[in-house]
Amino acid sequence: MAGVETYLEEHADGFLKELFELLRIPSVSADPAHAGDIAAAGQWVADKLAGIGVKSEVIPTKGHPIVYGESERVEGAPTVLVYGHYDVQPVDPLDQWLSPPFEPEIREGRIYARGATDDKGQMLTHVFSAQAWLAAEGRLPLNLKYLIEGEEEVGSAALSEFVAENTDKLACDCIVVSDCCQFAPGQPAITCGLRGIVCFEITVQGPDRDLHSGSFGGSVTNPAVALSRILSGLIDDNGRIQVPGFYDDVVPLTELERKQMADLPFDEKEYMEQVGVSDTWGEAGFTSLERRWARPTFDINGLTSGYQGAGAKTIIPDRASAKVSFRLVPNQSPEAIDKAFREIVEKLALPGVKVEVQGMHGAPGMLVPLDSPYVAASSKALEYAFGRAPVMTREGGSIPVVATLHEELGADTLLLGWGQDDDNTHSPNERFLLADFYRGIQASAKLWEEIAKV
Amino acid sequence: MAGVETYLEEHADGFLKELFELLRIPSVSADPAHAGDIAAAGQWVADKLAGIGVKSEVIPTKGHPIVYGESERVEGAPTVLVYGHYDVQPVDPLDQWLSPPFEPEIREGRIYARGATDDKGQMLTHVFSAQAWLAAEGRLPLNLKYLIEGEEEVGSAALSEFVAENTDKLACDCIVVSDCCQFAPGQPAITCGLRGIVCFEITVQGPDRDLHSGSFGGSVTNPAVALSRILSGLIDDNGRIQVPGFYDDVVPLTELERKQMADLPFDEKEYMEQVGVSDTWGEAGFTSLERRWARPTFDINGLTSGYQGAGAKTIIPDRASAKVSFRLVPNQSPEAIDKAFREIVEKLALPGVKVEVQGMHGAPGMLVPLDSPYVAASSKALEYAFGRAPVMTREGGSIPVVATLHEELGADTLLLGWGQDDDNTHSPNERFLLADFYRGIQASAKLWEEIAKV
Repeated sequence: MAGVETYLEEHADGFLKELFELLRIPSVSADPAHAGDIAAAGQWVADKLAGIGVKSEVIPTKGHPIVYGESERVEGAPTVLVYGHYDVQPVDPLDQWLSPPFEPEIREGRIYARGATDDKGQMLTHVFSAQAWLAAEGRLPLNLKYLIEGEEEVGSAALSEFVAENTDKLACDCIVVSDCCQFAPGQPAITCGLRGIVCFEITVQGPDRDLHSGSFGGSVTNPAVALSRILSGLIDDNGRIQVPGFYDDVVPLTELERKQMADLPFDEKEYMEQVGVSDTWGEAGFTSLERRWARPTFDINGLTSGYQGAGAKTIIPDRASAKVSFRLVPNQSPEAIDKAFREIVEKLALPGVKVEVQGMHGAPGMLVPLDSPYVAASSKALEYAFGRAPVMTREGGSIPVVATLHEELGADTLLLGWGQDDDNTHSPNERFLLADFYRGIQASAKLWEEIAKV
Repeated sequence: MAGVETYLEEHADGFLKELFELLRIPSVSADPAHAGDIAAAGQWVADKLAGIGVKSEVIPTKGHPIVYGESERVEGAPTVLVYGHYDVQPVDPLDQWLSPPFEPEIREGRIYARGATDDKGQMLTHVFSAQAWLAAEGRLPLNLKYLIEGEEEVGSAALSEFVAENTDKLACDCIVVSDCCQFAPGQPAITCGLRGIVCFEITVQGPDRDLHSGSFGGSVTNPAVALSRILSGLIDDNGRIQVPGFYDDVVPLTELERKQMADLPFDEKEYMEQVGVSDTWGEAGFTSLERRWARPTFDINGLTSGYQGAGAKTIIPDRASAKVSFRLVPNQSPEAIDKAFREIVEKLALPGVKVEVQGMHGAPGMLVPLDSPYVAASSKALEYAFGRAPVMTREGGSIPVVATLHEELGADTLLLGWGQDDDNTHSPNERFLLADFYRGIQASAKLWEEIAKV
């Protein structure tokens, strides 16, 4: 690593200059007017890979092209797949940007530009680290594959299909993704778990029109009452979900994981203030972080029925509907839960109404075992670059593309965020700490060495 | 009654001509442009009463005037208060009327005009019957008071106040109202009960903004979940309302009432088709008619929360609200139920949310005992005029003005409808069967005789 370190130091300005080049390409995937910019950004990435000695190709899709790269084969060494994306979010509202979004500039130690942290800046750290190895050592200590897409901000439709059809080509020992955040400023993190999701809409149809609640009330099932009973029956007073078998496949938290979460600098009072509630509540027996990261949930996302205007209108509404979602944790199967959910909804329905359940979308959760050797390798690399051991965290949200990669390729997935949660991703004045950019490159270079030892 | 009968026969055309006169006055209470017509209609009624020998006055109010009339005192005889209204509903959509709404005409045995049945035609039956008695017999067999308002279609605001402030003036033995329907064509009815009502809006406030259900789900009370649990906790699987003490004051149905309801020509299958449901449902142990007429209910009238558009949006909504109403039966107190309702809602709330209950409006139920001598008198009068004994029914809806009269004056209230349920009240082509108009006058004339015997 000594030569690699020297190379990184000597080429710091060059890395920044190249990042600025890519940031100047307005590769907004949501806007068809930017199709040419998208193509240019993809080509830039492919050329960059080729320039450092990684064989690359631009693969057309029904949507925006995928850039794929593969380093020269190192026999007997592990293979890492780096996932990232070269497309960016739209820039509206433009008038809130202090500097133009596609004219990157440094202010107070931060790079300001659309895509600075999400994901051009973070993604390129894994390219520059390989460049350093190849230039300084003449070789990589392991095999690298790059999968850099142009549709992450619009749903990764082409990628899912591509991954499913190219599992041999993409085969790897672990997956590395840097498209997220550290736990807190100065505190790096490895995100070892993501929750999955299943979403439904429940519609309860009662009478064929709104009825007068005086003339008919009491004799006809009120669909909003029926809906409330279904929804209420899905969760108990202890916050336990009542879908049969719901918890059967849940991977329980280990004592080590619970201890690690408990040790994180998380303040319950601050959290309550942050979200504006007088109390937290959830599944009995778990802390707020455990509930957010490692336990499955039931939420109602929307309710609609009958009269919603001012004052009273005394009707029995003809129908009532709810949008609901479950966050799943690793090992829960979206398909099994879909089935069990439909059964219990049917069972909870009162007589005299017709209940329909429409499935909307689903994705499984993801978990990297804390005792994975790749987690240990990442931990060493992060501590080396950031001067502090990373904390192990999970993310309560769902990142379908990561779940897809994890599931299709069956490899441990390391979510190594170099960003901060105030980097303004998806907002005006997106930014990326210069120090995080360089520490990211350094951590990545060290990561290749550590993974090579696994 | 022989002289009265003869008079009724000989003056049939005159009654119709006079009804037409009143129908030609477009006394639409909702439209300020018709204020002059409202005044003219009120004056017409007062003049008509005076013309038959009933002392009358037009009493100004903050809204439209009340017409009050009092017949010459008959010592020792009972006193009946006739309630009715001279205002009518708006006529929109005008283009659906086959003949102009204020140019009454007869087609196929029916009087077509706005107000024909609601309530000018029905109300005048009680004036023409008195006219016949006074002209043919020179006297009434009892004391009549007339309370004819001009704001029934816009909420009777002035009347409630007037009644409360004039209970001595309006003191009576029973109240007669003809502003409703027979049970079925050819089957007259006496409506002996009305349900009361209390309405609320429940608002559950959670976090101070919508939250991402991935990042926060599980740790924060979802206000829509909390609302569902409250709503669901208000009623059990047997359709029994769970508000503490809710049934304590309910007047139970007598065996006679249950038998009479069971004997009515009511077909459960036809009813299901009429309202478009596959099954009826309600409080266990009661029939559909009992549930509609004589048992209290809980209904959700509207639900609102979070995302209501197409597809999924995985949020924890910041709030959820429901509009709910209870229909009450005689003896339940809206005030007591208001109090018990607020307590149970508070008790059913999950931690971490703020629940607010806003009361909207309330009115008690009303019940005339089936063994009331006035019911028996009405029954004889109806059988005399319609050739068939009336059935005893109840109305599931609430008519606040009737409840007010009943409560303030403490008198039995006879709801004697001469109309049919397809008379198009409040709709284009309002109509009133000529035969029902004349039978109504005859029944009314007989009613004065029968009540005089009580």
